[in-house]
Amino acid sequence: MSDIKKIKIGIAGYGNLGKGVESGIKQNSDMELVAVFTRRDPGSIKIKTKNVPVCKYKDMERFIGKIDVMALCGGSATDLAEQTPEIARMFNTVDSFDNHVKIPEFYSLVNEAAFSSKHTSIISVGWDPGMFSIARVHSNCILPDGKDYTFWGPGVSQGHSDAIRRIKGVKNAKQYTIPLESAVYKVRKGDNPDLTTRQKHTRLCYVVAEEGADLIRIEKDIKTMPNYFDKYDTTVIFVSEENFTRDHSEMPHGGFVIRSGTTGENGKHKQIIEYSLKLDSNPEFTSNTLLAYARAAYRLAEDSEYGARTVFDIPPVLLSPFTGAELREKYL
Amino acid sequence: MSDIKKIKIGIAGYGNLGKGVESGIKQNSDMELVAVFTRRDPGSIKIKTKNVPVCKYKDMERFIGKIDVMALCGGSATDLAEQTPEIARMFNTVDSFDNHVKIPEFYSLVNEAAFSSKHTSIISVGWDPGMFSIARVHSNCILPDGKDYTFWGPGVSQGHSDAIRRIKGVKNAKQYTIPLESAVYKVRKGDNPDLTTRQKHTRLCYVVAEEGADLIRIEKDIKTMPNYFDKYDTTVIFVSEENFTRDHSEMPHGGFVIRSGTTGENGKHKQIIEYSLKLDSNPEFTSNTLLAYARAAYRLAEDSEYGARTVFDIPPVLLSPFTGAELREKYL
Repeated sequence: MSDIKKIKIGIAGYGNLGKGVESGIKQNSDMELVAVFTRRDPGSIKIKTKNVPVCKYKDMERFIGKIDVMALCGGSATDLAEQTPEIARMFNTVDSFDNHVKIPEFYSLVNEAAFSSKHTSIISVGWDPGMFSIARVHSNCILPDGKDYTFWGPGVSQGHSDAIRRIKGVKNAKQYTIPLESAVYKVRKGDNPDLTTRQKHTRLCYVVAEEGADLIRIEKDIKTMPNYFDKYDTTVIFVSEENFTRDHSEMPHGGFVIRSGTTGENGKHKQIIEYSLKLDSNPEFTSNTLLAYARAAYRLAEDSEYGARTVFDIPPVLLSPFTGAELREKYL
Repeated sequence: MSDIKKIKIGIAGYGNLGKGVESGIKQNSDMELVAVFTRRDPGSIKIKTKNVPVCKYKDMERFIGKIDVMALCGGSATDLAEQTPEIARMFNTVDSFDNHVKIPEFYSLVNEAAFSSKHTSIISVGWDPGMFSIARVHSNCILPDGKDYTFWGPGVSQGHSDAIRRIKGVKNAKQYTIPLESAVYKVRKGDNPDLTTRQKHTRLCYVVAEEGADLIRIEKDIKTMPNYFDKYDTTVIFVSEENFTRDHSEMPHGGFVIRSGTTGENGKHKQIIEYSLKLDSNPEFTSNTLLAYARAAYRLAEDSEYGARTVFDIPPVLLSPFTGAELREKYL
């Protein structure tokens, strides 16, 4: 370990992601939790770390100089779109902003806020965007001639589960995205198939209906929902509330990024790179990734490297508690 | 693409790796080959790129200022141990030095040579050391509580093939390293098994014997060879020279790095990260990796960032022909 002084972490937002950051800090001996910030009533929240205050968002200002990096754990991309630029004026930050299309605009806003106030903000950290993005860039640089494939799942899609819950007569729902084995097999073999949306993933929905609800109509509403379900083969299974709670309260996810390319004269050799994740807890994996990048944000700020960054700007050595020399000896 | 000006590449050593770099350059439109250097008689070597000279090693000096990055393609770690520190005084370099134990010492030598002469040298680039090393560091940073597993193969081990060829009565040989399915299965499931050397890989050897050689003695010599084979379950198959040439002239390889860890309260969630490669040509994959890092070496040198670097010091953006803004838009 290179430092004795611990990196002081703040958590903004105490949902699944914030709780994950809290447990993640305990796994990193060079970090400590300083405070948790919430939009709810702080008195209603019981955290798992002793002697750490739970405060209101508006109290954040009082912690300027006392927190090295704020882990932004807002529930959605919408939250973060507002929060990151605001908080980046007070603290170094890490976030998991995941609205791919809006990233360039978000980057500009955060960059301006962080740079002008001498802070460092690493945005869009997690697995996708995040580690999957790195896998795509690395693989494309090594294999310029090739095709990219990203498969998600098997795992819970929060967005699709929410969409089902908005249907009339639905009490609760969870949607699992499942990659199609046949497609994955062809890609791993190096066949470079052209795959339609329907040929890559199926969608499996567990639904708790309200008493007396029209199940046939609910099933039809799900399967025909534009963008979310209409382009997929979707299976709807109705379950009791009891079974739902028992079997579907976890948030597993995962997926794989595959680059299938060729090298050599006339591209005669196939080369396949795959990066894959199998996660029992999607939010906790993201939380731990946020912490590794919090370490990088802290170090960049110490070196007066201010402004916004993404995972593409961060060398592995900045993520690690070990020094370059230690890494060369142990991990190279 | 960010640049019009092409990066001028030199190749030192025209074996499998050098040939791979030559074909790789054709896949990267921002690079061009300037010269190939060899210890053999340049007249005996025919390269595949038109109007590019083949020169003797000692002519290298004449190319100072005309080559941006020299790709060092010496045949072995022994070659590179001498060549890199020498050539790093004249050019920016990339190499695939793979003697893990000697890396710290090698790094110091190269760092001194490159730094004092204002060059940038990225050492130990390839897949292991290289991309596998990055996978190990990334995964360890994200999952501090966990276990690392590296499996190699199925693929040809050059070192083990060479060792067999040194046995009396052996005309030719190729050794395939094969990961044991049962072990891989347990690791991917998250069982975190403790595995002995024998439980991780088997070794399969195809041998062409000289006429009249004692096959039983050869088989015994192989299976009992210290370090190389004695700790493994080894299978020896004798084949005719004809079949050997037909079936065993390629150099496939690959493998996977798995980190199996836990997150959350009491580590209740299993999280598995896997990085895997399936390569029809081991040297060509390494060559293409050298080129991606040659781009980074060139840029660092342009920014006066001199000295030795490893893959741990290089952010993804430096490897890519695209700018940061382009990467954020296309790959994040």
